[in-house]
Amino acid sequence: MKKFLNNPEAFVDETLEGILLAHPDKLKALPDTPRVIIRADSVKPGKTGIITGGGSGHLPTFLGYVGQGMLDACAVGNVFASPSAQVMYNGIKAVDQGAGVLCLYGNYGGDRMNFDMACEMADMDDIICEQIRVKDDLASAPPESEENRRGVAGLFFAYKIAGAAADKMMDLKGVCEVTRRALENIRSIGVATTPCVLPQVGSPTFTINEDEIEIGMGIHGEPGIETRKMMGADELAELLIGKISVELPLGVGDRAALLVNGLGATPREELYIVFRKLAKLLAQRGVKLVRPEIGEFATSMEMAGLSLSVFKLNDEELYNLYEYPAETSFYHKTGEYPS
Amino acid sequence: MKKFLNNPEAFVDETLEGILLAHPDKLKALPDTPRVIIRADSVKPGKTGIITGGGSGHLPTFLGYVGQGMLDACAVGNVFASPSAQVMYNGIKAVDQGAGVLCLYGNYGGDRMNFDMACEMADMDDIICEQIRVKDDLASAPPESEENRRGVAGLFFAYKIAGAAADKMMDLKGVCEVTRRALENIRSIGVATTPCVLPQVGSPTFTINEDEIEIGMGIHGEPGIETRKMMGADELAELLIGKISVELPLGVGDRAALLVNGLGATPREELYIVFRKLAKLLAQRGVKLVRPEIGEFATSMEMAGLSLSVFKLNDEELYNLYEYPAETSFYHKTGEYPS
Repeated sequence: MKKFLNNPEAFVDETLEGILLAHPDKLKALPDTPRVIIRADSVKPGKTGIITGGGSGHLPTFLGYVGQGMLDACAVGNVFASPSAQVMYNGIKAVDQGAGVLCLYGNYGGDRMNFDMACEMADMDDIICEQIRVKDDLASAPPESEENRRGVAGLFFAYKIAGAAADKMMDLKGVCEVTRRALENIRSIGVATTPCVLPQVGSPTFTINEDEIEIGMGIHGEPGIETRKMMGADELAELLIGKISVELPLGVGDRAALLVNGLGATPREELYIVFRKLAKLLAQRGVKLVRPEIGEFATSMEMAGLSLSVFKLNDEELYNLYEYPAETSFYHKTGEYPS
Repeated sequence: MKKFLNNPEAFVDETLEGILLAHPDKLKALPDTPRVIIRADSVKPGKTGIITGGGSGHLPTFLGYVGQGMLDACAVGNVFASPSAQVMYNGIKAVDQGAGVLCLYGNYGGDRMNFDMACEMADMDDIICEQIRVKDDLASAPPESEENRRGVAGLFFAYKIAGAAADKMMDLKGVCEVTRRALENIRSIGVATTPCVLPQVGSPTFTINEDEIEIGMGIHGEPGIETRKMMGADELAELLIGKISVELPLGVGDRAALLVNGLGATPREELYIVFRKLAKLLAQRGVKLVRPEIGEFATSMEMAGLSLSVFKLNDEELYNLYEYPAETSFYHKTGEYPS
């Protein structure tokens, strides 16, 4: 196994140690709960708190979005494993300023169960909690079983909207309302070409034939919806936007943000080649593209592949929240973008 | 070959097309010379121009650093191939505002020859050009043959210093002086675990045994100085900083910036684990660490591995230039960092 690590059991804690040593201006661990990462800067008094949580191995997801204009805390689990309810609860308590806390996370069994429990614990402390589960991965279940869908790179869009709303001092109800409205307009689909290797396992999590790709694979290597022969970038762009358009129709006068997310090993050059075709296809349909994101936002360690997330942004309020500035250890948004 | 592309011959132009579609606020192509990428924002009148150039396949290097506080232009070559002298010359002409132009690039044969020729062409137009060749890769030749050393991720530090100096309206002589002073204090060394695949070739550029790593490998797969058995992250950190310290001694009271650069496929988690050990080792020696950079800065497509660049920053002027704000399509620096 060619991974730069020491003891596989220490993989997550050593990663966290490195991140905290590198970004003391942005992040710190919660005293007595090193698996809760919170903002190092001062948070506006009375702001609605926002916490996320999930397994490790997806940087910048999740903790990379803790910071100004986005999240207040992240509960950090082991690789591909949920953090405990106790860790989540300590995080909730830390970020509550009396205005309540939104728990905003990907729809996975362990995270769901533990956040449910953490919110019950918070409730006993009279901390008002709301939960929103992100289920943007349309390949993970059919629309009629939407409650079974997983959260993938579309989480980034949800963090952006909720974080901006909270930074603008919206109350918990308002933050939840805009976030839910955003999620109705966010869909993702991924494609993988090579597997990843879990540090504690040391061998690939699955195999894909040398000439094939897996359409709809999840960020933990969950099976996709179909195996296809390797195809060109343009053909792939058409396939991905086609699948998303079924649920999120995009036509003349619509406005949308695209996120072309690398899963880990895929070069940026290739992400831009795919983005190029997506931008052209949408322009042909008369869709107005707003500031896109191209890079690594939700990875699966050294997995090769990419995902496309689309955020339909016809709604003026959501657009303004999307364009609101943010500054975290792994992400920043500033300045104007041609509209 | 599992690359997301269309025609391999169109790889670079389609990548550029995607980048320009994504970042119209930051970048544009030079009219009539699509292989010269320049800043889309307005440049301070009379500023010293800075141009770089080199082969493609290394994003964010090179064009990702064109922008505010860094570079004014980039001449873009094919994958791992120098751009032509004519393209470089057109770029030089475009960014000269009467104050002259610094050509700042990695020390590779083709780039050297073509920039020499481009500068001669500029000279005939009475454009004053200076050339600085970055030779930070200490594994590429012994110190006594320093002129044969290659430029790798340390280019980023050079761009940062030269760009800040030019943005502060230093004249060409001053920009060259601080950049040369910076380069005396910058050294890099890389290590690769897997090869990359050239789009036009379709197969790996070299092989490394399953249990081995190549110390000192270049960003085009140039042979390193030794092959070693795969080692732990801490051991690797000690090895890399040890090799750099021979030429750049770091001890009590010294100040240094670290750049832990992923070559393409290596997860961010692993980069942080290595950074963590480097930060500890230097702290033990009494070295004061300034704001580090951890991520992908100079890649080799899907090559796995990383490089360490160290910038000794005892010099107050260089430190202030290093901390000066920058904003490009692939990089930004803002805010305060604890000192």
